[in-house]
Amino acid sequence: MNTQEFYTNMKTEQDKIKENIGSIKNRVVVFSGKGGVGKTMITINIAYELAKKNSVAIIDCDITAPNIPKMLNIKGELKIKDKRILPVEHKGVRIVSSAFMAKDKDAIIWRGPLRSKLINQLLSDTNFESTEYLIADLPPGTGDEVLTITQSMKPNIALIITTPQEVSLGDAKRAISMAKSMGIKNIYLIENMSYLKCPKCGEKIDLFGEGNTKKLGEEMGIEVIGQIPLDIEIRKESDEGKVGVTEHPEKEFSREIGKIVEKINGASQ
Amino acid sequence: MNTQEFYTNMKTEQDKIKENIGSIKNRVVVFSGKGGVGKTMITINIAYELAKKNSVAIIDCDITAPNIPKMLNIKGELKIKDKRILPVEHKGVRIVSSAFMAKDKDAIIWRGPLRSKLINQLLSDTNFESTEYLIADLPPGTGDEVLTITQSMKPNIALIITTPQEVSLGDAKRAISMAKSMGIKNIYLIENMSYLKCPKCGEKIDLFGEGNTKKLGEEMGIEVIGQIPLDIEIRKESDEGKVGVTEHPEKEFSREIGKIVEKINGASQ
Repeated sequence: MNTQEFYTNMKTEQDKIKENIGSIKNRVVVFSGKGGVGKTMITINIAYELAKKNSVAIIDCDITAPNIPKMLNIKGELKIKDKRILPVEHKGVRIVSSAFMAKDKDAIIWRGPLRSKLINQLLSDTNFESTEYLIADLPPGTGDEVLTITQSMKPNIALIITTPQEVSLGDAKRAISMAKSMGIKNIYLIENMSYLKCPKCGEKIDLFGEGNTKKLGEEMGIEVIGQIPLDIEIRKESDEGKVGVTEHPEKEFSREIGKIVEKINGASQ
Repeated sequence: MNTQEFYTNMKTEQDKIKENIGSIKNRVVVFSGKGGVGKTMITINIAYELAKKNSVAIIDCDITAPNIPKMLNIKGELKIKDKRILPVEHKGVRIVSSAFMAKDKDAIIWRGPLRSKLINQLLSDTNFESTEYLIADLPPGTGDEVLTITQSMKPNIALIITTPQEVSLGDAKRAISMAKSMGIKNIYLIENMSYLKCPKCGEKIDLFGEGNTKKLGEEMGIEVIGQIPLDIEIRKESDEGKVGVTEHPEKEFSREIGKIVEKINGASQ
């Protein structure tokens, strides 16, 4: 392939993605500066809350650690029909993940450029027909891969998940800067592990520092649209593949996710 | 400088380090796979607990984010006497940190090789006279810099700090493998944020999954020498520069640090 052909191919790839997902009204990317802030768990809960009234698809963009199927405790296989990839459906949400491709786990050591290529293929070749919300769970960090996927997705909404810990906030700041530099229209901060309610006495316990995320939001001009408690019951059940907003719609955890979903709905009008 | 001179210089640097710290009986490196697990806070508490009976120095090896002085809320300046660097003393512990060098914070953007060079200089030129325990708070991760510093320190004890979260354990595993590959004699796992006791009713709350760290330890053949609770009072006070083991020697947090220090003492016999 010569340089000319390479760029022609590149263009075709981006054109195919645009053709395939351009008509999806709401394209949401979920960033986190680093791992360990609960990004995947929050992504899943937002998706299932949105799916109560909308048609939702999740694309799991982490090839190295495709945790969406793992956290939902589902196995599946991407099938091909009429030359299009069919997502795996689970309780009304369509899911695309490289975990549905790996037959032999040890065989897959994708290098960076190949990983981006695979995500691009999933974006261009998956049948997302009539999807209203496409939610991308990005790999942690603000590296090249995250940048490439975001460029392909052309999202109108970016959610940045953080905890109130200082190290996590520093990473969130970098993610906000990245989202801003890419011209994403609606950028929101979501604070996870904001507090914990004692399962026995109900005492509200400030785990990592109250007000830290709000301060970052003010500094960066970004709204904090949710403060999600660490709910021990939901955390434990999520290890078994259960989804908080489905199992416990009455809990504070779910009410906070509900508020976030309202905000996302509002932004997409 | 030609290649020959370069290697001669290298050798001299390592020789000078050996000459300077070789006689310190206990050289401890503190690893964490990633940020956010409380490595610096645990390092400080172990150092101040050890300092109750021993002569202790901390070297803050994170040039990008030198958090030791920040967490102790101290300002200071490294002075030179007889061509040696004098550590800053704080409540009986000697501290060396690049934070004591930076006059103009924004002026310092050290690149990797320069950062390693600076740490090597601190190791070779600081007056650690009669120090019994030299504790290095390494940068997070298992990158080149961590490798270089560890090679220079030739530690006999490695402490790997993790939380019971899955992502954190994966990182801890990498850190254990690195420590093993470097032939460090005593490698121990320390679990931070193991649980939380409700400040109101005393209920023991399992935050991120009981038994996870123990399982990793068994898999890797590494002993877990401490399970440290997230103590909200100590966490809050540490934001003001206070040290848990000093302020609250009676608390479970401090008792657990005490057990760790006994183990370290035993290993160094």
